[in-house]
Amino acid sequence: MNDARNMVDEELEGLVSMHRNTLRRIAGTNIIVRKDSPVIGKVGVIGGGGSGHEPMQAGFVGKGMLDAAVAGDIFAAPPPNQIHRAIREVDGREGVLLVVNNFAGDIMNFRLAEEMGKNDGLRVEHVIVNDDVALPEKGNRRGIAGGILVEKIAGAKAEAGGSLAEVKELAERAVENTRSMGVALTSGTLPSTGKPMFELGEDEMEVGIGVHGERGARRTRLSSADEIAKTLLDRISLDLGLERGDSVALLANGTGSTSVMELLILSRKTVRLLDEMGVAVAMSSAGNLVTSLDMSGASLTLIRLDDELGRMLAAPDTTPSFPKMI
Amino acid sequence: MNDARNMVDEELEGLVSMHRNTLRRIAGTNIIVRKDSPVIGKVGVIGGGGSGHEPMQAGFVGKGMLDAAVAGDIFAAPPPNQIHRAIREVDGREGVLLVVNNFAGDIMNFRLAEEMGKNDGLRVEHVIVNDDVALPEKGNRRGIAGGILVEKIAGAKAEAGGSLAEVKELAERAVENTRSMGVALTSGTLPSTGKPMFELGEDEMEVGIGVHGERGARRTRLSSADEIAKTLLDRISLDLGLERGDSVALLANGTGSTSVMELLILSRKTVRLLDEMGVAVAMSSAGNLVTSLDMSGASLTLIRLDDELGRMLAAPDTTPSFPKMI
Repeated sequence: MNDARNMVDEELEGLVSMHRNTLRRIAGTNIIVRKDSPVIGKVGVIGGGGSGHEPMQAGFVGKGMLDAAVAGDIFAAPPPNQIHRAIREVDGREGVLLVVNNFAGDIMNFRLAEEMGKNDGLRVEHVIVNDDVALPEKGNRRGIAGGILVEKIAGAKAEAGGSLAEVKELAERAVENTRSMGVALTSGTLPSTGKPMFELGEDEMEVGIGVHGERGARRTRLSSADEIAKTLLDRISLDLGLERGDSVALLANGTGSTSVMELLILSRKTVRLLDEMGVAVAMSSAGNLVTSLDMSGASLTLIRLDDELGRMLAAPDTTPSFPKMI
Repeated sequence: MNDARNMVDEELEGLVSMHRNTLRRIAGTNIIVRKDSPVIGKVGVIGGGGSGHEPMQAGFVGKGMLDAAVAGDIFAAPPPNQIHRAIREVDGREGVLLVVNNFAGDIMNFRLAEEMGKNDGLRVEHVIVNDDVALPEKGNRRGIAGGILVEKIAGAKAEAGGSLAEVKELAERAVENTRSMGVALTSGTLPSTGKPMFELGEDEMEVGIGVHGERGARRTRLSSADEIAKTLLDRISLDLGLERGDSVALLANGTGSTSVMELLILSRKTVRLLDEMGVAVAMSSAGNLVTSLDMSGASLTLIRLDDELGRMLAAPDTTPSFPKMI
């Protein structure tokens, strides 16, 4: 880096300078929007949250996905006035959907911004993503990697001409069918201090870790990739109520510094177990997409597909970082 | 992982199980091919090399890019008989192009396989990628991240119906216009030993590192992202002979455990410097695409574009991991 205090500013500037044909930044803000915003006659879709999870969220702005991403400081919710500004910027007269991960700060600030938008006379709705099954109580569940599948599905539906009600309904259906759970092998490093977020012994792992290093279900001895796959998939498939004949998309997500080799080895056992359950993997991707700085770890996300969810997930987009779901 | 001895086998199995609609593995080999191989009437394009660089190469097999990837053991060239087998598998009666990175072992084994293919009566040609400008002598230059741009361009040209001569000519034009250089901040870890490939002090970096940890131009004190961008770009642009009015694609590649945030900060300065030079960045991507196990570091790759190279680089593909060049 250059200076920890400027990291968010510099990365957003870097992103926009790399993709000048498709992205722009609203001056004086941490809002990245589609260059052609507002797209008149299309529902706007906005994501946002703390930084430190790159390429989420700004890397998912583009035709077919997000109209805008609003970045907070590292691990901090974006301020309501910037979310409000994004709403105004992308509203194309058909309303705006906010996709919000279930963290107290994000919920509060997105709700305030939604009210501000409504006071302007705009139609604004939200969906809350809470895909992390590490915690037993559904209300407390955090939004982790599954959020990008929800954003993609909402964005594709909006691009296909869906109304605000239709886009919201499909995004909610995506949330209902999405579950994730992760493990951490090492902590990420906070840029401001150069120190790890938490301490983890060399032969330990945290099962059910949150994207900000929040404690998960338990801390255990480091186990094999196959054992980790089984632990995560058992919890996910039980909670999702997966049944023989179901079709899913699989996202094997690295938390920042996880090699694709490791993600593929984790996926191998995951797909084997799904095969045994009679669940079809219709499409999938492996990569570091929803990260926790440079944390070493991984999460599995499954979304149970119906025809429309599958079609939207595989639709084309022009975002810098959403992967092909193949 | 599960067992270091099975990593390559397991990751290939994982990849194919995730993408059963598009990929298959030739039983008893480390060859991943397009499921519909051979595509009759299309030139076949093959990449290959040691493992440990994931998602390169198998992640780049798909319609519009590679017909086959042949994986060696970690950092070891694939054996000639497997490359030969891949040639036979993907030949669609229009010949096969081998894209080979400039390492002695790869060159030797791919050449042997090429001869074996020719002895079968097939038309086989090769191009050698040597994009790494860290070393002064052109003949000794290694192939690093630029190879995937060459593979993409060759694959897109073959998909568009190019003859073997045309695909080879365009791949050679891509090589001539591609330059890369990288830095390492930490070594990757060899899975077989659990030890780093090399030692690097906490405040040191290796400038001009190779993808197997080979020594580069020099070892220096760790400098800022902006200084690193300038060091790499100066060397690349001088060697490439970049001129005002040129148009390029930029690949900011992480070497395994580099955050996208860091890659974007590096790209920011790179694009600024290109702006000052009057060089247009027509498209770009940032991600961990050509890696050295879990090495922390980055490389910059520039390819000077003409209309055809740009069109091929931005063509669609169904590979699991080639990024959108936007």
